Amino acid sequence: MRKTIVLLLLGVSALLPAQEQDSMLIRRIFNEALTSREAYENLRWLCKNTKGRIAGTPEAAAAVEFTRQVMLDMGLDTVYIQELMVKRWVRGDVEFARVISSRLGSEDLSVTGLGTSVGTDERGILANVIEVRSFEELDKLGEKRIRGRIVFFNRPMDPTLINVFRAYGEAVDQRVNGASEAARYGASAVIVRSVTTAIDDNPHTGVMDYDEGIPRIPAVCVSTMGANLLSAWLKQDPELKLHLISNCRTYPDVMSYNVIGEIRGSTRPDEIITVGGHLDAWDIGEGAHDDGAGCIQSIEVLRLYKVLGIRPKRTVRAVMFMDEEIAQRGAEKYAELAKLNHEKHYVSLESDRGGFMPRGFGFSTEDDRLEGLLGLEDYFKPYGITEFTRGGGGVDINPLKESGTVLISLVPDMQRYGDYHHSPIDTFEQVNIRELQFGSASIAVLIYLIDKYDL
Amino acid sequence: MRKTIVLLLLGVSALLPAQEQDSMLIRRIFNEALTSREAYENLRWLCKNTKGRIAGTPEAAAAVEFTRQVMLDMGLDTVYIQELMVKRWVRGDVEFARVISSRLGSEDLSVTGLGTSVGTDERGILANVIEVRSFEELDKLGEKRIRGRIVFFNRPMDPTLINVFRAYGEAVDQRVNGASEAARYGASAVIVRSVTTAIDDNPHTGVMDYDEGIPRIPAVCVSTMGANLLSAWLKQDPELKLHLISNCRTYPDVMSYNVIGEIRGSTRPDEIITVGGHLDAWDIGEGAHDDGAGCIQSIEVLRLYKVLGIRPKRTVRAVMFMDEEIAQRGAEKYAELAKLNHEKHYVSLESDRGGFMPRGFGFSTEDDRLEGLLGLEDYFKPYGITEFTRGGGGVDINPLKESGTVLISLVPDMQRYGDYHHSPIDTFEQVNIRELQFGSASIAVLIYLIDKYDL
Repeated sequence: MRKTIVLLLLGVSALLPAQEQDSMLIRRIFNEALTSREAYENLRWLCKNTKGRIAGTPEAAAAVEFTRQVMLDMGLDTVYIQELMVKRWVRGDVEFARVISSRLGSEDLSVTGLGTSVGTDERGILANVIEVRSFEELDKLGEKRIRGRIVFFNRPMDPTLINVFRAYGEAVDQRVNGASEAARYGASAVIVRSVTTAIDDNPHTGVMDYDEGIPRIPAVCVSTMGANLLSAWLKQDPELKLHLISNCRTYPDVMSYNVIGEIRGSTRPDEIITVGGHLDAWDIGEGAHDDGAGCIQSIEVLRLYKVLGIRPKRTVRAVMFMDEEIAQRGAEKYAELAKLNHEKHYVSLESDRGGFMPRGFGFSTEDDRLEGLLGLEDYFKPYGITEFTRGGGGVDINPLKESGTVLISLVPDMQRYGDYHHSPIDTFEQVNIRELQFGSASIAVLIYLIDKYDL
Repeated sequence: MRKTIVLLLLGVSALLPAQEQDSMLIRRIFNEALTSREAYENLRWLCKNTKGRIAGTPEAAAAVEFTRQVMLDMGLDTVYIQELMVKRWVRGDVEFARVISSRLGSEDLSVTGLGTSVGTDERGILANVIEVRSFEELDKLGEKRIRGRIVFFNRPMDPTLINVFRAYGEAVDQRVNGASEAARYGASAVIVRSVTTAIDDNPHTGVMDYDEGIPRIPAVCVSTMGANLLSAWLKQDPELKLHLISNCRTYPDVMSYNVIGEIRGSTRPDEIITVGGHLDAWDIGEGAHDDGAGCIQSIEVLRLYKVLGIRPKRTVRAVMFMDEEIAQRGAEKYAELAKLNHEKHYVSLESDRGGFMPRGFGFSTEDDRLEGLLGLEDYFKPYGITEFTRGGGGVDINPLKESGTVLISLVPDMQRYGDYHHSPIDTFEQVNIRELQFGSASIAVLIYLIDKYDL
């Protein structure tokens, strides 16, 4: 008995069977993550001091500097940035929408401009509104009914879908392509129902895209409550008008950066494992769940390794991608440089689904590697993380797929995400320290096991 | 093809295999739950209009009347109340704690009285403080060191435990029994670190209990930030004093009620299935997660059955238990009347772990029934509810166990619960409509399957 204790005290855990050693190390990773407040305080700083960090803004530059500094202070083997050019879209100081009905009175709606949209002139657009639920409806209505009007896209996200990302995907075409689709028929602007199942007065912004050769018309989103009001009023007074003013605009491209920190691999430094999130965020919230959490978790993985003396065989990088929300130039640049430098990316993991309680991981790879990866689930069961599934990836790591990299997504519980996503309430206060850290620890453990067992 | 459609339109789903029928019905239950806002709005009403509903208060009476009325409006087969006598403990309008140090200055701490505690006199207690982490430490210190002092219990909840209820259980003895343990050695009062892993300035109240024959001394809890401050100051100035004022008190018992609504069983009405939560809640918050959510979910189960035309074979009851937080008189009364009326309780389910995303259910029963129950897990997989485990029950349904009732707990994700539990921030806004309704639907589906397949 005493001998055992002495051996343990001497740290001779190497005498234990491998599985027991793993279990003990996993326990230590979770213990450290669940007792440290560092990641949480880093997230607080990022949220409270770099709000507005759309790519190309001074706030984004501050976020670059902050995360770079945090990683430098950790004493990582290398911390560096990658230069890239990004669009510079700036929201104006006026975003205004008022419904005006001769019969019902007038009411201001809670709106915000969609990313990369053009603005209106100073007097704004005052026009009749036509409500549609799909592009097919637009086609049926045709130019005669649409020309000069503001098109109101009002198809809700389907609340009955269990996978809210699927529901999001099925509704987001209105936001992304609505303006050009409506402009084809001569619409003067579009107002789009926020892509969320939440019924509240927060607008949820997001990127939109103009088709080449189609007039660029202003595009705003409206809160779901605003959309419900507008729709109800339109039924009573189809001749009501909407007065829309927005002075956002796009400036010439500017330089921005990906931020990277790494622990160099002990025996296979040329094989690279990345964990990452995106550093840019929509300006109307603090970018806490989307995706401050993912960035901070990625940094935390390296901190956990440092603090616990874990030295992976392969190089492990935390990558803060820039410009995910608008044009994914950071992802593009990262993959381009990886190719240029003949880097071998063994595994890339993305955390960009919010800092909620992790439920598992999704994996994209060939079947022979998949089996081993799915088999890691057993290690996570004691921590309530039980869903290891086929299919992973993410906007920022997908470009690495062609070189054969295994892509992995952290999959947190998703049901609350839509409430916060791209909205003013995506704030630090909505992130729970334990849920955030279950994510950090899970990633750290997964990467540790993949590296150790060459999966 | 057309024939199939006609058959489906005629509702001849009976032609489908049983499993497919079940899947369709389960889908309908989830669809209805995820598209209806009724339960959520009921919870809003309960939270916003009956805040303070400790058993025996006018607010508790309002909650009784509200839930009774909601169930009457639903047109259930029976809605009734059960009379019971409850303690009437009333928090005063003064809860004050100030640390006073000749060296460090003075600071007010965020405190609140523990349920059933006695108050101080009007001038309060001004005394030195002695910090301990366990009852063993008290024993070691002995009367000489403790007499006249305020004992400060400061053992934190263990943040490394994955099961936060276990961590809670390991720390809560300080709150429940601390006063009598300290009074044995002549302490003048106790101040207890809030039982939560959250580090913030919210006190988390809860019940405490006096041992017979031991002097009853005032007991308050302090926010974790307050506890950290007090502990830090004590290290610098062990002679500091704490000034404690609290004017809570206990009045003679008053009458209160359990509230019950039921759908009578079609073929086995004498066999009873209950789904329930507790209607009383700590007064400093709104009792949203604890346990407005459980009550409203229980009512929602019956609404789902009514709306979807589901007629169970057995009688299904929604039970709103009174007085869970203080003395569980409602649970006692319910079991007593069930016995008196020779009611056969087939299954009792409790939802009292917050309105968070359900992860599964826990079951307590003999092994031969357990297997069938655990096997229901497959039905829930499409909804991300995957953890069916041995071991269920709850404070309000445990008294039914002796008559052989199967006890079931709804098990939601637990990591956020400690932030809100018994605190001022257990408010309606902290409940997400989707997570709440995943719970309602899951219970409705589980009970439907248990009843249908006589599990």
